[in-house]
Amino acid sequence: MARINQARLLDDLREFATFGAYKTGVHRPTFSPQDMESRRWLASRYEAAGLSASIDGIGNVFGRVAEPGPRLLAGSHAESQNYAGWLDGALGVIYALEVARAFREDPDCEGLHIEPVAWADEESHFLPFLGTRSFIGDLDDEEIASACNRTTGEPLTAALAAAGLAGRARERCDAERYVGYIEAHIEQGDVLESTGRRIGVVTSIVGIQQYRLSFSGEQNHAGTTRMAARKDAGMALVAMCNRINETFERLKGERTVWTVGNISLDPGAPAIVPGGAQMLFQFRDEDDAIIARLDQALRDLVGEADRQGPCRASIDLLSSSKPSRMLPAFQDAFDEAAEREAPDAHIRMPSGAGHDAQIVSKVLPCGMLFVPSVDGISHHWTENTSDEDIVLGCQVFADAAKAILRSAAGR
Amino acid sequence: MARINQARLLDDLREFATFGAYKTGVHRPTFSPQDMESRRWLASRYEAAGLSASIDGIGNVFGRVAEPGPRLLAGSHAESQNYAGWLDGALGVIYALEVARAFREDPDCEGLHIEPVAWADEESHFLPFLGTRSFIGDLDDEEIASACNRTTGEPLTAALAAAGLAGRARERCDAERYVGYIEAHIEQGDVLESTGRRIGVVTSIVGIQQYRLSFSGEQNHAGTTRMAARKDAGMALVAMCNRINETFERLKGERTVWTVGNISLDPGAPAIVPGGAQMLFQFRDEDDAIIARLDQALRDLVGEADRQGPCRASIDLLSSSKPSRMLPAFQDAFDEAAEREAPDAHIRMPSGAGHDAQIVSKVLPCGMLFVPSVDGISHHWTENTSDEDIVLGCQVFADAAKAILRSAAGR
Repeated sequence: MARINQARLLDDLREFATFGAYKTGVHRPTFSPQDMESRRWLASRYEAAGLSASIDGIGNVFGRVAEPGPRLLAGSHAESQNYAGWLDGALGVIYALEVARAFREDPDCEGLHIEPVAWADEESHFLPFLGTRSFIGDLDDEEIASACNRTTGEPLTAALAAAGLAGRARERCDAERYVGYIEAHIEQGDVLESTGRRIGVVTSIVGIQQYRLSFSGEQNHAGTTRMAARKDAGMALVAMCNRINETFERLKGERTVWTVGNISLDPGAPAIVPGGAQMLFQFRDEDDAIIARLDQALRDLVGEADRQGPCRASIDLLSSSKPSRMLPAFQDAFDEAAEREAPDAHIRMPSGAGHDAQIVSKVLPCGMLFVPSVDGISHHWTENTSDEDIVLGCQVFADAAKAILRSAAGR
Repeated sequence: MARINQARLLDDLREFATFGAYKTGVHRPTFSPQDMESRRWLASRYEAAGLSASIDGIGNVFGRVAEPGPRLLAGSHAESQNYAGWLDGALGVIYALEVARAFREDPDCEGLHIEPVAWADEESHFLPFLGTRSFIGDLDDEEIASACNRTTGEPLTAALAAAGLAGRARERCDAERYVGYIEAHIEQGDVLESTGRRIGVVTSIVGIQQYRLSFSGEQNHAGTTRMAARKDAGMALVAMCNRINETFERLKGERTVWTVGNISLDPGAPAIVPGGAQMLFQFRDEDDAIIARLDQALRDLVGEADRQGPCRASIDLLSSSKPSRMLPAFQDAFDEAAEREAPDAHIRMPSGAGHDAQIVSKVLPCGMLFVPSVDGISHHWTENTSDEDIVLGCQVFADAAKAILRSAAGR
């Protein structure tokens, strides 16, 4: 076992959280001064660990080993959501740093390498999964030229220039270089906590279907328009929510989730029967077949409502991401390591949230490990994980990495 | 019969619509330059008809007769909604002017008087029923000092000063002076058109109950939060809409209407389970007992939802107006006049919309007459009524006024 240094791990995590500190969390949007400072600090930590460090043209921070031998790319994203938690992304970034160091300190790991990486903008201040999409070659200059910060409106090109990254090359993945990519992350849900587990082994990252449902009826006076004469777009939307809930309840998979995140009525005045209504609807599942079944059912419901009237109904698919399977052999390695360190306190589970690994999995075998989120909270400054769980997760991550690399080396 | 002058009526209506003309409608917000110009034009028309005219400190325009004898106050509001129709308010204002003239031209009407009035801001650019509330003594200077234009934010005091009304006295109703108040208005609905009638005799102006319903649950990640673990405030709101619809359908009166005019989810993001949700809900009915029954049922539903969970639910009454009964004797007078001019083409009906008469009815007996709205449209520049219906309505209005005043004079 490559023993991790618990104190060094926790110290580095806490030091990382000083960049953009906000209450007990952090505010470290991508390419902000505090984000760039944290990336330069990471690069210096990689160097101090004996790796060669670089920050590429999209802000990804790489630590590299010159020696030959099988290597795993390991990491997560360095930036945070606005005014959010200290562990979302950071945990996986510092785990990778610590495990890289532990490997270099362990004679038994000679010739087995961890190359840490800190991705840019998984959190979509400019574009979702910006860093990993650049890394796998799924991002062109045109997209960069048109992207703006969702909070401040600053163009991405201006942010890159201000961050000193303009003109730098963007590193592309050399798939031959790596055995695969592994990532640790806080769960951001309560499955581990509510089942008394301490380690989650991710089976897949769910696919997400995002839609806009629109209803159009007839705007009218709320006092003079008889109920029977109304074409109330808001009530058509409410009826659709009911039908979706009934239908999805019947057709769902074991861990399907669906959400109406936004509703708006037009004109939205107290004394006017709404002539228009819109809702943002999404659902997630880990199974392509279930996603296809639910997509079809949703389209059928909208078509049926449109035919029945009295309001028109339409549906637009806004985005669609496929489920990403984690490599079974990596899942086994995480499971076995977890069983040694925390018998019976681990569980296989899909990830309901998106992660960098889902992008990297398009070019490399991937594995993911979750640690518990206290009260299931994330994207909030109160986000936390106990020190014991942080330490345990890192040791399991290290052990699994060693097993994966030993197997790749034929040892 | 006091015969109205059809051409003069239509000409004056069309001339009135030139103040703030917008497409085929008008844009004449209260105390705007075009609104004040229209009020001064009205005052000059009253003078030309042999009345003494004045504009008081809140913009109400009065035409007065010096001679003794029973008199009816008659009118409506002069301003329009923003970019709206040419008849809403204007019709009743010009009817009163025309009928006042017809009375003065008819020897048979000697000693019977119509005093026309054009109220200010029934449409609530600053405050609902501003003019009539001032007239009945239900408006104090404090309320005036704190009111602002809902579109521009301009303080009411500044608008009154700019309109040249600052410092002018506000006229108060002398209930002894009048037999009552009568008002004509476009229906703003489709009851007349859909039943083939040309005259509506208003039985009452409905009471309006306006509420805010609030739901609070737990804001959470839409991917990582299991359906069973959710406290989705948006879904609690949708469920409440269903329960309201079922319950009101069962308890409603013949012409009860209810409306969800606005829905908002907090934070309203596509990938976040809403932790908060609010809706604006109103209902209207002409019967106090039905209003009380529905109010109680609504409060019961909210209390029940709050107890059942998983979200908290609460209700705030934002405003409440009582149904206003029109005087039965005035209804009879309108009915009889309508039966003579348009046999079988009249109907008694409540008004689902609010009108100045509901305020004036607190101090004077009131009556109201409706003419058809083409396609039931109002609060839009396409609002219209056929010339034939405009003329018929005015003659019925004149005939009924004469009958009421003759009866008051003991003739």
